[in-house]
Amino acid sequence: MSKPRIKTMEELSLAIGVSRPTLSRFFQDPTLVKAKTVAKIEKGLEQVEYVPNFFATRLNRKSTRMIGVIIPYLNDLFFTELLEAVEVAAMDAGLTVITQCSHSDPAIEARAAETFMSMNVDGAIVAPLGDHSDQAVYQRLKSRMPFVLMDSRPTTMPDVDYVGTNHAQSTGLITEYLSRVGEPPVFMAMPRVNFNAIERENGYVAKMNELGLKPEVIGAEFVNENWHFEDHGEAVLSAEFAQGRFTDRSILCANDRVAIGALRAAALHGLTPGQTKKGGLRIAGHDDYLLCPYLNPPLTTVAQDTASIGRKAVSRMLQLIRGEVIDDTPEITLFDGNLVVRRSA
Amino acid sequence: MSKPRIKTMEELSLAIGVSRPTLSRFFQDPTLVKAKTVAKIEKGLEQVEYVPNFFATRLNRKSTRMIGVIIPYLNDLFFTELLEAVEVAAMDAGLTVITQCSHSDPAIEARAAETFMSMNVDGAIVAPLGDHSDQAVYQRLKSRMPFVLMDSRPTTMPDVDYVGTNHAQSTGLITEYLSRVGEPPVFMAMPRVNFNAIERENGYVAKMNELGLKPEVIGAEFVNENWHFEDHGEAVLSAEFAQGRFTDRSILCANDRVAIGALRAAALHGLTPGQTKKGGLRIAGHDDYLLCPYLNPPLTTVAQDTASIGRKAVSRMLQLIRGEVIDDTPEITLFDGNLVVRRSA
Repeated sequence: MSKPRIKTMEELSLAIGVSRPTLSRFFQDPTLVKAKTVAKIEKGLEQVEYVPNFFATRLNRKSTRMIGVIIPYLNDLFFTELLEAVEVAAMDAGLTVITQCSHSDPAIEARAAETFMSMNVDGAIVAPLGDHSDQAVYQRLKSRMPFVLMDSRPTTMPDVDYVGTNHAQSTGLITEYLSRVGEPPVFMAMPRVNFNAIERENGYVAKMNELGLKPEVIGAEFVNENWHFEDHGEAVLSAEFAQGRFTDRSILCANDRVAIGALRAAALHGLTPGQTKKGGLRIAGHDDYLLCPYLNPPLTTVAQDTASIGRKAVSRMLQLIRGEVIDDTPEITLFDGNLVVRRSA
Repeated sequence: MSKPRIKTMEELSLAIGVSRPTLSRFFQDPTLVKAKTVAKIEKGLEQVEYVPNFFATRLNRKSTRMIGVIIPYLNDLFFTELLEAVEVAAMDAGLTVITQCSHSDPAIEARAAETFMSMNVDGAIVAPLGDHSDQAVYQRLKSRMPFVLMDSRPTTMPDVDYVGTNHAQSTGLITEYLSRVGEPPVFMAMPRVNFNAIERENGYVAKMNELGLKPEVIGAEFVNENWHFEDHGEAVLSAEFAQGRFTDRSILCANDRVAIGALRAAALHGLTPGQTKKGGLRIAGHDDYLLCPYLNPPLTTVAQDTASIGRKAVSRMLQLIRGEVIDDTPEITLFDGNLVVRRSA
């Protein structure tokens, strides 16, 4: 037999004999209600079919216990891994995560921010598109709710808390490793679409200068406007290899998706990176994309600590929501990258 | 100079001289308000800083213009592509998509469904976990709102509208192709975690029988409980290749992620699939995962039509929301797969 369906809190109050204000307190926080009454309510709820209305129970509360998260694109395993880390940390903290994806479009990104404002989420964690993001929208977001940036830090938002990777350290680490085990690396860039692209390029150049080696950057120009970094890596390096260039060099790619294209270009030209003990073609990436161990050859890379980035973004958000942050100097947290040596370099 | 911030519709009514009920109608649907008044409201809104409260404006409306979408896991480019297709179609229809991920956990999947119910979303589009899904939660969801299944169809939910791929056709198509160009294919299964795993296996067996060939299935047993299909493909085939088995056969993998592991196993054993014109090792997959063109060698596969599946799921949802569906026979829509021939087979 199906249970009677209860639609409103008034009906529920009548059905189980507990006053409306007490029920309201119970749904906000059961510890606000006497244990005996909690037991009575819980027993009553088992007898009926009732789902508290999310909007009604939250409308007059300061906190909605929801946070909004924006990621720039979906079809990228780095961002899904980062989003997963945020969702897991948020679930542990009892928060509901509302995710929106920018789909590489600043207008969609701006609309996602507006949606968060109109939903009264407790705060927003954003991995921004970068250069193209609508700065005015983000200033408005910041003025309205706790706001934490992750993954990429636009120079135009210096006053926002940020959690990400120390790209000078991570890129420096792998540049140093490649210089030690083979030919001095060339940097296979990605189009300068966001601040990470530039930070990694700068990190490479700084480390090469420190080592007394001549930095060399290729592929920073736009090949196409889509976000198929694999295409970019394959197109740029296939053209170079065809002219006999870089075939015995170390190639440090700006991210693993570019490196996947680079591995493909090498295979097309009959080259196998990482074959020799010293010297010869080597290909490395950045991020530790989930597929790296399964590539042919498996990709040497530097891992971003997505678990720590996600956890820290959520814990900072909780501090902001609880009003525990008095100092308004933005907090910048950078996690080191870890070298992951596989067969490609 | 910053604009005055308006927090409630009452304040807005005072600030721009339009009555509260008229404003409410305007935010529900501007066509309900006289054009002259619309102009007055729009001019007024430009002078102030005001974001209508999502919950307040939606609380008393039949429709929230939000739909909920559940996907089973995030770190899978097939699901991100399908989700993107749904989001694009929903945006075109003016719907806000609230996405939740099950993270392979039936308890999280059930909580996501509860969140949708409590948020009063207009409907839910779900790619279910499968065997492990909590059927009671889905029956409750179906009794409360328009509900469409996509990607995988549990036999326990025969009364729900479903949009997916015709796996008998898609698997049959590539089985036939492989039988024509090389050795009769063996089917490299995935653990039978969902209905697609079984449908594809059955599709392969049926086509082999039709062709008068002997079906042979390997790898259907559980190797590990994680969702790393690449691990599964690599572990099973590496063990087989080490014993000299299947090294000159066609291997049809249950999905592209299994095939990525299979390609890795082949490389580990010095095998290059798709080398010879007739016969020899060939490896093929299913789905047309976004990375297929960049693998070494690029993977032959059968593409699922994610764009059509996403679009159809949303258009069916809109019909249900609008009450245009009178017949309560579930509508089952299956899209054909398309053969994508690359170098691996």
